[in-house]
Amino acid sequence: MATTSTRAGNDKKLMLFSGRGHPELAKQVAAELNVEVTPQTARDFANGEIFVRFEESVRGSDAFVLQSYPQPLNTWLMEQLIMIDALKRGSAKRITAVLPFYPYARQDKKHRGREPISARLIADLLKTAGADRLITVDLHTDQIQGFFDGPVDHMHADRTLIEYIGANYDVQRITVVSPDSGRVRSAEKWADSFGGRPLAFIHKTRDPLVPNQVKANRVVGDVEGQTCILIDDMIDTGGTIAGAVRVLKEAGAGDVVIAATHGILSDPATERLANCGAKEVVVTNTLPIDDSKHFETLTELSIAPLLARTIREVFENGSVTSLFDGHA
Amino acid sequence: MATTSTRAGNDKKLMLFSGRGHPELAKQVAAELNVEVTPQTARDFANGEIFVRFEESVRGSDAFVLQSYPQPLNTWLMEQLIMIDALKRGSAKRITAVLPFYPYARQDKKHRGREPISARLIADLLKTAGADRLITVDLHTDQIQGFFDGPVDHMHADRTLIEYIGANYDVQRITVVSPDSGRVRSAEKWADSFGGRPLAFIHKTRDPLVPNQVKANRVVGDVEGQTCILIDDMIDTGGTIAGAVRVLKEAGAGDVVIAATHGILSDPATERLANCGAKEVVVTNTLPIDDSKHFETLTELSIAPLLARTIREVFENGSVTSLFDGHA
Amino acid sequence: MATTSTRAGNDKKLMLFSGRGHPELAKQVAAELNVEVTPQTARDFANGEIFVRFEESVRGSDAFVLQSYPQPLNTWLMEQLIMIDALKRGSAKRITAVLPFYPYARQDKKHRGREPISARLIADLLKTAGADRLITVDLHTDQIQGFFDGPVDHMHADRTLIEYIGANYDVQRITVVSPDSGRVRSAEKWADSFGGRPLAFIHKTRDPLVPNQVKANRVVGDVEGQTCILIDDMIDTGGTIAGAVRVLKEAGAGDVVIAATHGILSDPATERLANCGAKEVVVTNTLPIDDSKHFETLTELSIAPLLARTIREVFENGSVTSLFDGHA
Amino acid sequence: MATTSTRAGNDKKLMLFSGRGHPELAKQVAAELNVEVTPQTARDFANGEIFVRFEESVRGSDAFVLQSYPQPLNTWLMEQLIMIDALKRGSAKRITAVLPFYPYARQDKKHRGREPISARLIADLLKTAGADRLITVDLHTDQIQGFFDGPVDHMHADRTLIEYIGANYDVQRITVVSPDSGRVRSAEKWADSFGGRPLAFIHKTRDPLVPNQVKANRVVGDVEGQTCILIDDMIDTGGTIAGAVRVLKEAGAGDVVIAATHGILSDPATERLANCGAKEVVVTNTLPIDDSKHFETLTELSIAPLLARTIREVFENGSVTSLFDGHA
Amino acid sequence: MATTSTRAGNDKKLMLFSGRGHPELAKQVAAELNVEVTPQTARDFANGEIFVRFEESVRGSDAFVLQSYPQPLNTWLMEQLIMIDALKRGSAKRITAVLPFYPYARQDKKHRGREPISARLIADLLKTAGADRLITVDLHTDQIQGFFDGPVDHMHADRTLIEYIGANYDVQRITVVSPDSGRVRSAEKWADSFGGRPLAFIHKTRDPLVPNQVKANRVVGDVEGQTCILIDDMIDTGGTIAGAVRVLKEAGAGDVVIAATHGILSDPATERLANCGAKEVVVTNTLPIDDSKHFETLTELSIAPLLARTIREVFENGSVTSLFDGHA
Amino acid sequence: MATTSTRAGNDKKLMLFSGRGHPELAKQVAAELNVEVTPQTARDFANGEIFVRFEESVRGSDAFVLQSYPQPLNTWLMEQLIMIDALKRGSAKRITAVLPFYPYARQDKKHRGREPISARLIADLLKTAGADRLITVDLHTDQIQGFFDGPVDHMHADRTLIEYIGANYDVQRITVVSPDSGRVRSAEKWADSFGGRPLAFIHKTRDPLVPNQVKANRVVGDVEGQTCILIDDMIDTGGTIAGAVRVLKEAGAGDVVIAATHGILSDPATERLANCGAKEVVVTNTLPIDDSKHFETLTELSIAPLLARTIREVFENGSVTSLFDGHA
Repeated sequence: MATTSTRAGNDKKLMLFSGRGHPELAKQVAAELNVEVTPQTARDFANGEIFVRFEESVRGSDAFVLQSYPQPLNTWLMEQLIMIDALKRGSAKRITAVLPFYPYARQDKKHRGREPISARLIADLLKTAGADRLITVDLHTDQIQGFFDGPVDHMHADRTLIEYIGANYDVQRITVVSPDSGRVRSAEKWADSFGGRPLAFIHKTRDPLVPNQVKANRVVGDVEGQTCILIDDMIDTGGTIAGAVRVLKEAGAGDVVIAATHGILSDPATERLANCGAKEVVVTNTLPIDDSKHFETLTELSIAPLLARTIREVFENGSVTSLFDGHA
Repeated sequence: MATTSTRAGNDKKLMLFSGRGHPELAKQVAAELNVEVTPQTARDFANGEIFVRFEESVRGSDAFVLQSYPQPLNTWLMEQLIMIDALKRGSAKRITAVLPFYPYARQDKKHRGREPISARLIADLLKTAGADRLITVDLHTDQIQGFFDGPVDHMHADRTLIEYIGANYDVQRITVVSPDSGRVRSAEKWADSFGGRPLAFIHKTRDPLVPNQVKANRVVGDVEGQTCILIDDMIDTGGTIAGAVRVLKEAGAGDVVIAATHGILSDPATERLANCGAKEVVVTNTLPIDDSKHFETLTELSIAPLLARTIREVFENGSVTSLFDGHA
Repeated sequence: MATTSTRAGNDKKLMLFSGRGHPELAKQVAAELNVEVTPQTARDFANGEIFVRFEESVRGSDAFVLQSYPQPLNTWLMEQLIMIDALKRGSAKRITAVLPFYPYARQDKKHRGREPISARLIADLLKTAGADRLITVDLHTDQIQGFFDGPVDHMHADRTLIEYIGANYDVQRITVVSPDSGRVRSAEKWADSFGGRPLAFIHKTRDPLVPNQVKANRVVGDVEGQTCILIDDMIDTGGTIAGAVRVLKEAGAGDVVIAATHGILSDPATERLANCGAKEVVVTNTLPIDDSKHFETLTELSIAPLLARTIREVFENGSVTSLFDGHA
Repeated sequence: MATTSTRAGNDKKLMLFSGRGHPELAKQVAAELNVEVTPQTARDFANGEIFVRFEESVRGSDAFVLQSYPQPLNTWLMEQLIMIDALKRGSAKRITAVLPFYPYARQDKKHRGREPISARLIADLLKTAGADRLITVDLHTDQIQGFFDGPVDHMHADRTLIEYIGANYDVQRITVVSPDSGRVRSAEKWADSFGGRPLAFIHKTRDPLVPNQVKANRVVGDVEGQTCILIDDMIDTGGTIAGAVRVLKEAGAGDVVIAATHGILSDPATERLANCGAKEVVVTNTLPIDDSKHFETLTELSIAPLLARTIREVFENGSVTSLFDGHA
Repeated sequence: MATTSTRAGNDKKLMLFSGRGHPELAKQVAAELNVEVTPQTARDFANGEIFVRFEESVRGSDAFVLQSYPQPLNTWLMEQLIMIDALKRGSAKRITAVLPFYPYARQDKKHRGREPISARLIADLLKTAGADRLITVDLHTDQIQGFFDGPVDHMHADRTLIEYIGANYDVQRITVVSPDSGRVRSAEKWADSFGGRPLAFIHKTRDPLVPNQVKANRVVGDVEGQTCILIDDMIDTGGTIAGAVRVLKEAGAGDVVIAATHGILSDPATERLANCGAKEVVVTNTLPIDDSKHFETLTELSIAPLLARTIREVFENGSVTSLFDGHA
Repeated sequence: MATTSTRAGNDKKLMLFSGRGHPELAKQVAAELNVEVTPQTARDFANGEIFVRFEESVRGSDAFVLQSYPQPLNTWLMEQLIMIDALKRGSAKRITAVLPFYPYARQDKKHRGREPISARLIADLLKTAGADRLITVDLHTDQIQGFFDGPVDHMHADRTLIEYIGANYDVQRITVVSPDSGRVRSAEKWADSFGGRPLAFIHKTRDPLVPNQVKANRVVGDVEGQTCILIDDMIDTGGTIAGAVRVLKEAGAGDVVIAATHGILSDPATERLANCGAKEVVVTNTLPIDDSKHFETLTELSIAPLLARTIREVFENGSVTSLFDGHA
């Protein structure tokens, strides 16, 4: 009995897969990792059903499946699930779903009865399809990590954003502002990162008898003459954030800079942001931003280096913690 | 201790829910059942995330969640999953997913390596969201029933189609034709249902060295002068079926009638079917057919009575078998 | 064949079970429900292993298992799990775990790498033991609902607290204060409930280079002369909240009233709260408060009516939503 | 909207199903319950594959699936699993597997490494097929209850056996004897049931260097002149028990009566038991005993009344505990 | 701290295990792989319970468990499940169940209500016992792959059969014939493999009012003077296939050669096939064929090389797809 | 594309973790393995909630989590579950829970209805938290192995105990005694290990009408003048075992030596054992024994070498069977 026939080395092979949500980001990550995105056939049948087939054997691989979530978001979700299913059935050894933007993160609780918790559903769907672990960036709330029954590497883009702002603005004039009462804690962390800068937030007064109707907005905290860094995890239609800029300006703020990880920029975000009076809007490319959505004051930072470093650490069983130390 | 406080009657309450894929069908089913579709809020966020909230308590209900699957199909899938999640979290007693057309049914096996089995994935996603059981119509293959770990009521629309054709054509002149080698067994069942009529199919010769390239089509079986009933489970772009009509005509067939359960009718199906030479095209409304897709020779039969009878039998624990006896 | 032998009525029977964490609360709930707590044997073996046996048949019951979580908290957790296991094996029809205070709720995310998410673990342990659903009050974060794979009725005690404060203080002088940046959103809801009152919070400046070290506390928002309602979900050792009182006083606040749902009151909370300068400390009895922990300015409101109404609605398949409408 | 169409009564319907392992026992149980065994088609394909189809709707039923385990035991196991699968897919409301004799119970632990725990496997297979709960009689070890993740009603036949012996022998002369060191505890319970009678067991000395080789058997305890009741849970080939009779006789025992719940009676049990010198061999009919296996001193008691009472209590949510009180 | 004590190489070890269903095939596969079948004790207790114990440590192994399924089929199923359980409990690293013939494959759907889907049940039982993946050959329908929640390597024996026939018969005279309407698609693939040969099938006319009663058989397609290759996936009792030979002969066919992957050959297959007029019957040895079942015109090809190549590719994480390219 | 970036060696890394139940034992095991216990932060919040954080990356490790179960036992259980959760979420490759003493092992069956099977619950909780496998010593009953769905290495300490006794007492005068009827089988194994020594046990006569009331104790078997080795798996309060010493002495026994694997020694065990007349009490250190519990005739043997050898064999995929051969 020859040893060669019954024993085999067990080297791991990193393979990177990309859905069609944001191919450019996948290419950037691949370049950082010095690998190629695994070739695949992905197409839609005439009625919209997605078909995926990998062009190379995935057997025994350590597979990373990157998908971004621009519109049509549900299509990209199904594509990622189908890719994971194909990897599972094709005998990948371990499957990591990489979601730079976690879809449905805003539905992380029941606001009232008879509502779904769609963010948990997403975690369960990924698990059911075959994902062993997740990599994601700046979840809407940290608790979403706990929705997945397995390892989640939850990376933070704010260091990237903070470094950029620190290099381009006078930190000693900064006040960090939360656009509503729900993100004051995040603003506090940013303020600490800038060396203990002041803090403010926009307080919305609601009429408890009329659901969702805001009676008034006002700034709590002092912003007069300050360079206000207005932060959020995501900018969707930009209504809240653009409104916050106006309230700040009315309160005597100096420059207002908007910083957010996820630039969803659904209509009419571009128009609103371009015209709201903000000096600059800084986002990362966790989501693709079409040329049609660009505007002069928009700055887009690449998330690819952070994703690539995380993937490498996961692959090599290194410590990802060092990548985000100090952020929590 | 009062009895009234610790014992409660346990009557079941049927509730019908409808996704936005085909509201008209839901209304038809509701009318047949003499109930109302449960009011709900279902809307898309700006970035395409779906939100659902039911307007009435669903606690303890026997819930039937009807969704149809026209384009954008992946959106309707996510909507149905979210509705099921909301019902589970809202304490519905039993949740039945009703899918008149089962999406991704054509991906029911790996044709080659490194492919998904998306039809199984769909079953698992529904189960994960919280569906206890399924009702569906004319699966692409019967084996898909086995993909779901629970009760599946698999209904058949062919009795509806056969009755219509029997009433409108001279049965004694009918030959049942399968458009390819894969549905000859179905054609045989139809031929039996017409009292033992002849059978034919279109044989495609392929070059095994050139994947997917068809060398020639020819009819196996005698169709000369016959009224050919050309059957299929679904018509997507209509290419195969329209081609089959031409082959039959060249082989001397008389009238050709196309009959299929699911009228997907993706572009350019309408044009192809209207101009292929078929005398009539008969489908059911498991999928909505826009006015823009209609053409003169198209006949649409309603599936609502069959769905409603099935729902009622499931609710009342009656026998659904009687509804499709003789079909297998 | 006699009908009586093969058919049986299917009335549901509500049974209430109580762990040893807070028997007095169970008795209050039972009284509200007009039932008796089901008699059981629960004792510890000499080495601390818990033994439970129910004195009545639980077969077919709709079982509600109430446990509170004072010290020794892990013992009461194991007791509740064992009770649920015994109910599962004893054929209870449905098992609802009732946790007025959800243990380990503060560990709802990984702050850094290599940490547990114990709040998710708790949900999974309850599910594994056999719990079909949960009832709980004022979770540390709303997202914890999503940790459990099943229905969660998440009740809110703030209406109880707000009504009490509204009846005992001059609402027109109230400012609602969050003791840190993480609960400003909750404070905003309270402020709305009081008809749109002002808002403030304590801002802690940290040195990002020295973990957990706070450099300074200061009030953001105007509190001078106001009756400050200082809110939190729970008071453990009382350090943060007592410190907040002092900061408020230094900032010129009028009366300071502390309001929280869960009065854990671990040492030295009693001493701190009694001496911090707060006019009154209002909590509910989701956790038992020993006589030794009482102090003059402590007010304890009963949560039993809310729990009892929720249990009844769940049992009768009514709508719990009406119990907490307007709270989210 | 008519009430009749959306609400339905929810009476339960008991249905009894029987595998082909012991149809006579099923008939006895049915007669006790005053029901009919549900008609079904069960047959073997030419290659031994089993096919099952029920002749009546099982939808919504409270299904009890009785199977006994004579030879060919693995066939009857597969038949019971297939029946349960068909009930699950046919929408039975609750499925109880009734196994008067639990197969593979002797493989309830790993004696050495690289062995299965087949008794746990059986429990998992039943669960996977769809069984919600189990009813069984005199498990080889009580711990097997814990192998199933759900309710197990573990009934005891010894009361039946003890009553028979008490009525036919002079209790004051009885010594209860365990055939080996492993069932002394059971013998002690019997001795208590007879009012505190003496106890003995057969001690086998083994050579630890030669696996499984017994060096000597001798009686521990005093049996001279006593009516020895030699007990066991099952009699397979009868070698151990027949050898025990001989050892007892050599030790001066009076009459020896063998009592066991499960009469497997594999060859050459009949010959051994008929000729071992025992005055009587008493078993129940948890397993069928062919005419060819009968012998003059064999007494067969019916287990059907116990099974029927248990099924009725389970169906009616009564207390089964009362049926076996005092046995443990 | 020595490196040797905390780090260990992680070479994989292939181990082959064989049930008692077809030891000769296991030996052939082992010889192809240049390994030994792992020694084990497998025996039946007197009552038919199977006992298995491996003679070598299986810890950390990549285990392949080969079982064939002749009569008594249910016994061999239970044996394979028990072997898998023993491997799981003995810490095998990965367990692949190898089933050259998948039992119960014909029960892959509900033909009517209240039937099992036993082919899905088999997949679930294997999973429950501990199988991580499957290797199988020529499933009755391809969809059965989707019944297993994990990787399935579905190999095809037709290349082996086609090569044999191509080498022994004049391909230019061949017509490929399906014995019924259900396998015309398979016949079409064979016809393509022979370079585009003609196609025929046997059409059975049934009376829809009399279940299962066939009124007439006739050939659809032209077979006069042709060498008919009559194909099927399995031959059980041989009734259908022998009848098909007769119908072909009556229709003027030349030589008729029967080719099938699985030679079950249940009685009276040998007699039927030997006397039906077929020139040759070609099968593989996925199932053992006793000497008593052999007849002069039977040719048996070995499946061992295909199984061994697949096992090796799985073990070495190579691509199995290349082994069956062109078959789908 | 560089090979180094897509392939990585896959050496395993053994990491040992210790709960706070018995840190001294962990140190002993670590010393035997020549590793360090992984540094971690483990502390209790003021309300008793446990917090754990590992100080080193655990990604990809082969993790062994040792916990002992002295008082407060439920706290140590929760700590072990939380540690396992943190390892799962921190991407440990494989997690083995090491429980020298398995808690709740005595609750391995339902003695009567409406009781839990807590030993099964423990297995399920460990699995749910994320344990892949277990190592444990001398389970109360062997069947508990089957409660865990995965590999269990069940080690035996009796060889350690037997060697000690064989070296310190005259084997030719030994009689092995079981303190009750339930452990006679264990006593028989010990008697075999001593070369076929005699056997005895204490028979308790109970009144079946008065639960748990013992009427009389007497020795079955001859102990006069013998050195009695009185064995048990665990000694909790010592009541039974101390009573057995007295009964043996009254029956004329010579020296009585108590031997047990698990020395729980709950109050008043120390007093009872010190004064019961036993010449020596021998236990292992699966549980810590406080200085306050020591007494002159107590001998404590270390279990660390056995645990360390087992961990090493598991890590290196060696055979653990050799470590306990001959014990079953």
